[in-house]
Amino acid sequence: MDERLQRAAAAVRTAGSDWAILTNFDSICYAVGHVVPIEAGPSPFAGGSTTAFVSADATCGLVAANVEAGADASRADATILYEGFSYDHAVDVVSNYAEAVGAMKTRLGVGGVLAVEPESFSARLAALLEPSRTVDLTPALRRVRATKTAAEMETLRRAAQAAAVGQAAFHAAARAGRTELDVFAEIRAAIENFAGGRVPITGDFLSGRDRTAAFTGWPIDRIIRPGDPLMSDLAPRVAGYWGDSCASAVLGIPGEAYLALFRAAKGGLDRALEIMRPGLVIADLDAELRRHVGRAGYRYPHHSGHSIGTSVHEWPRLVPYERAPLETGMVVMVEPGAYDPEVGGVRTEWMIEITADGCRPVAPFEHNPSIACA
Amino acid sequence: MDERLQRAAAAVRTAGSDWAILTNFDSICYAVGHVVPIEAGPSPFAGGSTTAFVSADATCGLVAANVEAGADASRADATILYEGFSYDHAVDVVSNYAEAVGAMKTRLGVGGVLAVEPESFSARLAALLEPSRTVDLTPALRRVRATKTAAEMETLRRAAQAAAVGQAAFHAAARAGRTELDVFAEIRAAIENFAGGRVPITGDFLSGRDRTAAFTGWPIDRIIRPGDPLMSDLAPRVAGYWGDSCASAVLGIPGEAYLALFRAAKGGLDRALEIMRPGLVIADLDAELRRHVGRAGYRYPHHSGHSIGTSVHEWPRLVPYERAPLETGMVVMVEPGAYDPEVGGVRTEWMIEITADGCRPVAPFEHNPSIACA
Repeated sequence: MDERLQRAAAAVRTAGSDWAILTNFDSICYAVGHVVPIEAGPSPFAGGSTTAFVSADATCGLVAANVEAGADASRADATILYEGFSYDHAVDVVSNYAEAVGAMKTRLGVGGVLAVEPESFSARLAALLEPSRTVDLTPALRRVRATKTAAEMETLRRAAQAAAVGQAAFHAAARAGRTELDVFAEIRAAIENFAGGRVPITGDFLSGRDRTAAFTGWPIDRIIRPGDPLMSDLAPRVAGYWGDSCASAVLGIPGEAYLALFRAAKGGLDRALEIMRPGLVIADLDAELRRHVGRAGYRYPHHSGHSIGTSVHEWPRLVPYERAPLETGMVVMVEPGAYDPEVGGVRTEWMIEITADGCRPVAPFEHNPSIACA
Repeated sequence: MDERLQRAAAAVRTAGSDWAILTNFDSICYAVGHVVPIEAGPSPFAGGSTTAFVSADATCGLVAANVEAGADASRADATILYEGFSYDHAVDVVSNYAEAVGAMKTRLGVGGVLAVEPESFSARLAALLEPSRTVDLTPALRRVRATKTAAEMETLRRAAQAAAVGQAAFHAAARAGRTELDVFAEIRAAIENFAGGRVPITGDFLSGRDRTAAFTGWPIDRIIRPGDPLMSDLAPRVAGYWGDSCASAVLGIPGEAYLALFRAAKGGLDRALEIMRPGLVIADLDAELRRHVGRAGYRYPHHSGHSIGTSVHEWPRLVPYERAPLETGMVVMVEPGAYDPEVGGVRTEWMIEITADGCRPVAPFEHNPSIACA
């Protein structure tokens, strides 16, 4: 049995429940290994959100539309695929979903206290499953997900490699006269060829002083010019797990003001690698990184990082108010930044695994402040 | 007042309800003009699905996380943006969402019979809004959405233009030795530069005999070879409205067997343009297209097309069991195909607007069965 399912079942017990009803895409992937397609939004062929069922003793099931790619290849013990569309007869997908949920309820004996995800647990599911009571699964599930299993580490490494492939493509593709979107498309092609298929990507892609100083946003049709600061924050989802990364560079030879930003941000990342180890309280890590960047005269009005897995942002986040300590097996993104409205912005980010005696970067790539200006 | 809001309010009345609670991304865009970001899945910063409220007399509101791009720029009369994340203090997004919904309920006087979208109406919303009864909004809303307003036509034309830009890029970028993903990335860059930002895209991108004969699937890392049949079904979402299109071609000079497929499919599309007019029963249109392709010796085991708008597949779909007639102002995708496992597949698709006395293609592009093999 996959260790994630065992952990999900433990969360069901911790929540004081009999069954978990999973309706968020990240928890479905975690518990039963089905990667819900997300790039085009919820499917017009679905009668309800794809739903996984996990009992306190680790029985699990999956209900999805039969047109949902990959739904027949999960780790679930029981799978019911309802008809989502037919070209030759009328299909009522909402009724079909309800029937499939009812059939799964009967087959697995779903009932009692249900632990749910309140963002997405539907009133329809509540009516169908008739829980004696519902509780929020989120706190217990996020806790077991915070450290990664060996199988997860392998998948996360591949996702981090995909991000690194994207950063190499960023340096190769950035050229004066291209739009941000042109460069982003080449980055995307490199990542998708690495993965062998389409890959959802979030993050930021920014060029120019003003956009990089403001530090968030998807690419637009702005034309890149020689001397522009660039920021490439790439978070691809590969096989259900997110990679992440941020590289920053100038197109051409960076000036001293930019290099000062770069040294501050990269110095923060280097400092993180020196001090991260099991037991370090996250608030203390966060404070040290802000101090480090602050000594150079800069600050970053955003988190210092976040955990990552089947969701791109998981608990614990690296924020001043997080009192949890780092633990062996956590995988966190560390991304200190330095911003100056007169110069631009720099953020340097790697994925870092917490090991028994410290930490190590996962599939790191070189942080280089200069891109040759062809 | 935007005509879509008036129509949504009419649907609220038709459903026998006092308020509609909109939780699907397409209906939110339709009613209040907010384009929910979808490409990376539901946001990890949201405490519930973005929610719009529309009364029977066309008052409307929107609740979204404050980190959701564009949520402050909708057509809603009232907007409440709850805190989705802060780097310097703890945020309980699920509670914040609930509070925002409660505040909107009070501000607008939401109550009575609620018309909901059962796929996504959450148990949390049901508990917060305490409806006297809920009814399904879907049938009434899909009915008012089936014909497009003047503003929608303008947006759909731009989405169709984006698809046509993509098809031009398909012909320009397809080359032997490239992967499907390489070509798709150039298509995507062309569409995104046209739109000025990132664009969700669904559809199919396929190369080779076996993949095009099987006719559905996203691009993979298969290397395109001279003589390959290619199928480029591109559906981009621009400003909340989907374009769609399918082009098919051989890389090089097509043989007679391929041209027979091409003539059958394209002939079906041409036939549709001859006969589509208000009053034509969709089942009769569907039957005529299948007859036309059938006379050439082929069939297509999929729909003949579908309506399009803020959802990529809307009612009415062009299927054998649809008894509704075409109406002035409908916008439908028509996509007959012809498939032969020994040769490959061809599908030719345009967006077509039903006019008072017939129909016309929206932003059509040339269907050309050959791509010069460099």
